[in-house]
Amino acid sequence: MADILILGTVALDSIETPFGKVTNAMGGSASYAALAASFFCSPAIISVVGNDYPKEHLEFLESRNIDLGLVKKEGKSFRWEGYYEFDMNHAKTRKTELNSLEGFRVDIPEKYSGVKHIFLANIDPELQLSALDQLKKPEFVVLDTMNLWINIKKKELLEVIGRADVLLLNDGEARMLFNTTNLVTAANKALALGPKGVIIKKGEHGALMFMDGRHFSAPGYPLENTKDPTGCGDSFGGGLIGYLAKTKDFSERSMRKAIVYGSSIASHTAEDFGVNRLKSLTMKDIEKRYNEMREIREF
Amino acid sequence: MADILILGTVALDSIETPFGKVTNAMGGSASYAALAASFFCSPAIISVVGNDYPKEHLEFLESRNIDLGLVKKEGKSFRWEGYYEFDMNHAKTRKTELNSLEGFRVDIPEKYSGVKHIFLANIDPELQLSALDQLKKPEFVVLDTMNLWINIKKKELLEVIGRADVLLLNDGEARMLFNTTNLVTAANKALALGPKGVIIKKGEHGALMFMDGRHFSAPGYPLENTKDPTGCGDSFGGGLIGYLAKTKDFSERSMRKAIVYGSSIASHTAEDFGVNRLKSLTMKDIEKRYNEMREIREF
Repeated sequence: MADILILGTVALDSIETPFGKVTNAMGGSASYAALAASFFCSPAIISVVGNDYPKEHLEFLESRNIDLGLVKKEGKSFRWEGYYEFDMNHAKTRKTELNSLEGFRVDIPEKYSGVKHIFLANIDPELQLSALDQLKKPEFVVLDTMNLWINIKKKELLEVIGRADVLLLNDGEARMLFNTTNLVTAANKALALGPKGVIIKKGEHGALMFMDGRHFSAPGYPLENTKDPTGCGDSFGGGLIGYLAKTKDFSERSMRKAIVYGSSIASHTAEDFGVNRLKSLTMKDIEKRYNEMREIREF
Repeated sequence: MADILILGTVALDSIETPFGKVTNAMGGSASYAALAASFFCSPAIISVVGNDYPKEHLEFLESRNIDLGLVKKEGKSFRWEGYYEFDMNHAKTRKTELNSLEGFRVDIPEKYSGVKHIFLANIDPELQLSALDQLKKPEFVVLDTMNLWINIKKKELLEVIGRADVLLLNDGEARMLFNTTNLVTAANKALALGPKGVIIKKGEHGALMFMDGRHFSAPGYPLENTKDPTGCGDSFGGGLIGYLAKTKDFSERSMRKAIVYGSSIASHTAEDFGVNRLKSLTMKDIEKRYNEMREIREF
């Protein structure tokens, strides 16, 4: 049985960065998150793909013990086309084709509804709420989102934030959602909505966590060769919940380690296009960078 | 005798932020830096003020054992008028009156030319070079700069970088000077010019140091109440060289501690307008935040 349910997208991405490009590569929030989580335990993806979705992509996910039993197949695949300019902190969208994602409804059968660890990766907050409604008694819910939902479904997003244990968002989103430039203020406003912890992802600058009246500042790993930042946030979230589900320790102390494991995987993700680096990545590589991140912040 | 020479400006600042404003407050790179350094040892300022410079500002500096023997007095004081909008990461200039700074020449008499620790705070790189030329045998030179000099005196700036032990610059300046968005690449290009170490200041995101083939990532202290960021970079540099001159340990390990002391002081500086917070700040406050910065990066 799966240890984690991951609700999110499984997409076909076409990406261009100053360092190259890929076409119809495996992408989507659930793909990255599940691959990252699979280093620690067995995730199941809740999503939809089109009938045109390449078999080899799905086979690769299955080869990592990712359960695809809740991945529906209908119509055409969700596609995203985007690019990055020299400041690779922000993706720019050329085209989004929702296709099969448009009519997607979450159905969680009895067999899966007792899974305790849930990652609501980036997807429509209405689907996130629907997933929560179908779960028996989730023990730990991590929620991710993006600026699009802040703009068009803020009410639903605020509702799902109130039902999450931990909220992930990037610094720009935190400032936008809570209408402040100060990240401490934004985090306090987020905590007031209900979550036990808030994690603000800052890309190359690392991540901040606010929980139990304490604050944690994770360093960014200094990458000289960032090729493609797509999926870094999703890998971060997947690594985080993977570590937590494995250790079953949701304390503030354990969250700190989970954040650094998530950052280690995310920094590797950025070193190649799409999920390419995750294909060759080993637990040894992840541990090595985890230890380097301890060393670079020592004083 | 002074332990550190600090070359920089002593200004009258008029500053407006979303949280209030001050007029004709004590400002300038050397004022902030010397006040920060004075927590650790005795600095002397090399600068110029106008005959109109308020006596109480100079008396306050002297009350902190800051040697003003090399501060010339002529004409009218250098004035800066600036403001910050809600994103307080960037100062915007309303008006700059160079006044007495315009004809300023550095003259370091015999009595001071043997001082071993030098902070070339933000000022025209030609003046920084002139100071270095007049010193007998400086042991440790820390250099700071700003985007203005990158734009109008790049050649002189590159020359003085080649003669510094440690270069400080902020992330925007590093990207601009070395024509890259990647901070690791920028740091490597800076090191190739000669300094032993490069420190990239990232404001609320902390600081990075590259030295001896190693990398250090200092956390930013999470401030909820930033009132005025003016002088934070200068206080950071002053605290850094103050700690180094006190310990006389210029190793990479000691530099890490110096960076965190500098960050502790800088974060306090931002909590009130101008040098106000530095007036009430105690070594106990500095140590307390230093220890908090150890705690927030623990995992």
